[in-house]
Amino acid sequence: AGRLATREELPFIRDRERDTHKGNYGHVLVIGGSKDFVGAPAISSLAALKSGAGLVTMAVPSCVAGMVSGRILEVIPLSLGDEDGYLGKVALDEVLTMIDRFDVVAVGPGLGMGEPVKAFMDGLIKNCPLPMVIDADGLNNIEPTALIKSKAPVVVTPHPGEMARLTGRKTEDVNSDRINITREFTRRYKATCVLKGARTVIAVENRYYIIPTGNPGMATAGSGDVLTGVIAGFIGQGFSPTDAAILGAYVHGLAGDMLAKKRGEYGITATDIASYIPVAINELKKRM
Amino acid sequence: AGRLATREELPFIRDRERDTHKGNYGHVLVIGGSKDFVGAPAISSLAALKSGAGLVTMAVPSCVAGMVSGRILEVIPLSLGDEDGYLGKVALDEVLTMIDRFDVVAVGPGLGMGEPVKAFMDGLIKNCPLPMVIDADGLNNIEPTALIKSKAPVVVTPHPGEMARLTGRKTEDVNSDRINITREFTRRYKATCVLKGARTVIAVENRYYIIPTGNPGMATAGSGDVLTGVIAGFIGQGFSPTDAAILGAYVHGLAGDMLAKKRGEYGITATDIASYIPVAINELKKRM
Amino acid sequence: AGRLATREELPFIRDRERDTHKGNYGHVLVIGGSKDFVGAPAISSLAALKSGAGLVTMAVPSCVAGMVSGRILEVIPLSLGDEDGYLGKVALDEVLTMIDRFDVVAVGPGLGMGEPVKAFMDGLIKNCPLPMVIDADGLNNIEPTALIKSKAPVVVTPHPGEMARLTGRKTEDVNSDRINITREFTRRYKATCVLKGARTVIAVENRYYIIPTGNPGMATAGSGDVLTGVIAGFIGQGFSPTDAAILGAYVHGLAGDMLAKKRGEYGITATDIASYIPVAINELKKRM
Amino acid sequence: AGRLATREELPFIRDRERDTHKGNYGHVLVIGGSKDFVGAPAISSLAALKSGAGLVTMAVPSCVAGMVSGRILEVIPLSLGDEDGYLGKVALDEVLTMIDRFDVVAVGPGLGMGEPVKAFMDGLIKNCPLPMVIDADGLNNIEPTALIKSKAPVVVTPHPGEMARLTGRKTEDVNSDRINITREFTRRYKATCVLKGARTVIAVENRYYIIPTGNPGMATAGSGDVLTGVIAGFIGQGFSPTDAAILGAYVHGLAGDMLAKKRGEYGITATDIASYIPVAINELKKRM
Repeated sequence: AGRLATREELPFIRDRERDTHKGNYGHVLVIGGSKDFVGAPAISSLAALKSGAGLVTMAVPSCVAGMVSGRILEVIPLSLGDEDGYLGKVALDEVLTMIDRFDVVAVGPGLGMGEPVKAFMDGLIKNCPLPMVIDADGLNNIEPTALIKSKAPVVVTPHPGEMARLTGRKTEDVNSDRINITREFTRRYKATCVLKGARTVIAVENRYYIIPTGNPGMATAGSGDVLTGVIAGFIGQGFSPTDAAILGAYVHGLAGDMLAKKRGEYGITATDIASYIPVAINELKKRM
Repeated sequence: AGRLATREELPFIRDRERDTHKGNYGHVLVIGGSKDFVGAPAISSLAALKSGAGLVTMAVPSCVAGMVSGRILEVIPLSLGDEDGYLGKVALDEVLTMIDRFDVVAVGPGLGMGEPVKAFMDGLIKNCPLPMVIDADGLNNIEPTALIKSKAPVVVTPHPGEMARLTGRKTEDVNSDRINITREFTRRYKATCVLKGARTVIAVENRYYIIPTGNPGMATAGSGDVLTGVIAGFIGQGFSPTDAAILGAYVHGLAGDMLAKKRGEYGITATDIASYIPVAINELKKRM
Repeated sequence: AGRLATREELPFIRDRERDTHKGNYGHVLVIGGSKDFVGAPAISSLAALKSGAGLVTMAVPSCVAGMVSGRILEVIPLSLGDEDGYLGKVALDEVLTMIDRFDVVAVGPGLGMGEPVKAFMDGLIKNCPLPMVIDADGLNNIEPTALIKSKAPVVVTPHPGEMARLTGRKTEDVNSDRINITREFTRRYKATCVLKGARTVIAVENRYYIIPTGNPGMATAGSGDVLTGVIAGFIGQGFSPTDAAILGAYVHGLAGDMLAKKRGEYGITATDIASYIPVAINELKKRM
Repeated sequence: AGRLATREELPFIRDRERDTHKGNYGHVLVIGGSKDFVGAPAISSLAALKSGAGLVTMAVPSCVAGMVSGRILEVIPLSLGDEDGYLGKVALDEVLTMIDRFDVVAVGPGLGMGEPVKAFMDGLIKNCPLPMVIDADGLNNIEPTALIKSKAPVVVTPHPGEMARLTGRKTEDVNSDRINITREFTRRYKATCVLKGARTVIAVENRYYIIPTGNPGMATAGSGDVLTGVIAGFIGQGFSPTDAAILGAYVHGLAGDMLAKKRGEYGITATDIASYIPVAINELKKRM
């Protein structure tokens, strides 16, 4: 049931069709940020754009909006209600009211921890009718059982530490049994689970994939935010959430590998990786 | 009467003349932005600069000014009166008072929707003595009959959805009869009409052009804002509005094609396209 | 007495000496900005850095400080007293109090027009003990006789329109007699005069130079701000003000020529030129 | 006991190990900034990232936070209590409360001068349980005897002027006896001393190193901030503070040398150097 996600196994990346417009490539809503973290949702937003998404809106609490609105000119900023520097119930209502403008949600980068965020995440998972990619503090503020209540497909992208908290294990235990734990998570919580780390594992219903790309130079701040944005970007472009997860993880790793080949593994940054996403997609398409 | 806008048909791009200064290349006024959209007027401003404009002023409502003023160092920021986060009547008066500083107006990117914007656009079209390029929410807030009242040549750059609203049709009906609808619009409303989409159509008085450049990788947020800026930039440099529209659309598409050839069609961003405008002009000039 | 400033005639650019630190390369104070113009002093500051200056402080009125402080990480921001959005007497006192921290002043870019600025410029010229480069609105707010009162060498860098106002002529008359007018200005007002435009003319005491570099692609917003920064940067590095003016104008033009050769004359921006200043210096040094 | 730090002598830079995550590469806390200096801590933060650090938090007084938070998307901003525009006792308490989140501290860039900063630095040195790199105004606000009280290894990176103040000498006397003074400083104050300048000298317990890389093009604003960030970044990645100092100084100089070879010594900026840190590490690893 498991296999290395070789190029032959990957979802096929089609040429973009001629008679299309930006609406055909999805409107990604990235939700993140807090008084504790500012740049993370911007990195995800940039990555979504670089994966080919048609439109990206970045929703952050108002305390953060002034710092990052206009930072990436193509991204539409959305300032949400702020509960002591975090997204909370007011923000939740705002998002749900306008949710039908979007095609996919990426939530988590930089949300921070606390009761407001827990309420936000709980309400979002229960009520969001769109496919969601949940990462980072989006995962740190929920119990995994909450995922079962989701109305639409969910992709979760924990790193081993996040997975440990979600499953009540120690991080080393997660790492010593990566495949089974990922598969169990997907089976139990009905969410495509992407367990990051050296050799990312992705479990979808009855199968799992091991991603052959990636290198330890990608162990850098914001690298995961890029992955989140790319997966959401691919969902927006019509890939199924599971295909988007597999392809996103492969492309993210390939971008890092191309950077490492060019410049070595030291000092790769998340914006470097994001800037190489188009290059990696192009390289992969050529080989398909 | 119609033809493919091949290189031979394009308005000739002259060498810049030796004894010239920035005032010879036009002062473009870009008007846009609202509490809903921040980066769009900056993308148009950048594109105008990259097309060769001598000076660019970017006018936005005051709520946006702090986010983008200084973002592009060469652009002169202008903070206008803000009506609940939108440009309205106060902003209109401010613009008209200083309108003789400028040579051409590009209006629309990121204006948002609402009564203040309708009043702004209505007053601007009636009173602006300069050639105007109207795009995006600049079109979404007007009735096309308003264009007849304009005092100077107007170029409109709707995408099919905007054209559908303007003409009371469905988007699919616009797309199934692109040439005739574009020609009819130009004839009826006395505005050079640029209907975007795969194979952009441009109608000028008795003729129309089909632009052979461009690719679906350009279906991305802000791509249209680049086109708006480039057309305005060419008007500022002395091209007639219709020549600027044809040349601008050709160059915009060529920039995208050069990017796609280099890096593939996935993940092209509007700032990428803007940065390639000089490269595309240079390439086109060589071939002329 | 006049000659084309060929490479053989230029002041020699020495290798930087081994046993040196940033203090040996001068501390440039760039003064500019107003509620009307934001990016101009930042462009000059960037250009000063790119010419090799050791330190650059950028002083702007407080209303502008929030928009550009931190924009160029290497530049030290200095927020000055703000008189209705302009520098005025309070700012003057602040500058003069700390003037001995600096080696050279570049003043003018983006100052705007008005009584506060006139008072600022008048006081600065009378009291500043450092060599000054005065450009743009630094010239538009003074009478040329004020220059005679300066305590240290002054370089002025008017474009023909600014020169016309300074000398009570029409712009076309300035352009039809560029060499004599520049020479007369230098003679009468004891300031090295750099008359910009196609073939920049520089008059120093008994001689004048015609700069052979430069192209009309450089007729773009902020191009002059780059020149101002480069001349100040060279003064900070120990060139005499007249040598810095000649060398700065040559290098500025060479940077533009190298850009134009690579990418054509359309769409060159001031930050492009600034980024090519080191490349041009390197190229020139190789040929010396 | 002394030797040129040739490649053979340098601490070995290992390949990053496969089974690692960003937590394995250290969390660097950069502390700096004041109302007088804004960009310096951001330059150090960027350099730490570019050296391979896993996470970087940049702590600045609140008056500065709005100017640089979000400037480098990967860096986590931390706004500290502000005492008249400087870090002081409140900020100290805040830092110490959360100090166990971090692995290494880089303190000094842009702190400015004054009593609040003195109190901050004094308290930090006495109480910080982490290795520290102290630079610039971090050194200008302390007496060297304070270093003896530090709880963990300290690296200091004075330039000759800073060293002169610290040791009560004249700058020229420091420069005429660089090796002995550096060694004496290390011996007396139990801190790895990096004396910057042409041929950086590093003294560790019984030995000293002379760094053969570097060139006078690096005598530019912020160049030292890069070095500070790189050393801290290497400590975070598991090098001993002394190894990190030697390697950091070598790599910093090599980055500058590679830039100078490519573009000449004029106009190198600190962000240029930071961007070349990965390139230099890669080059050095290849030669090892």
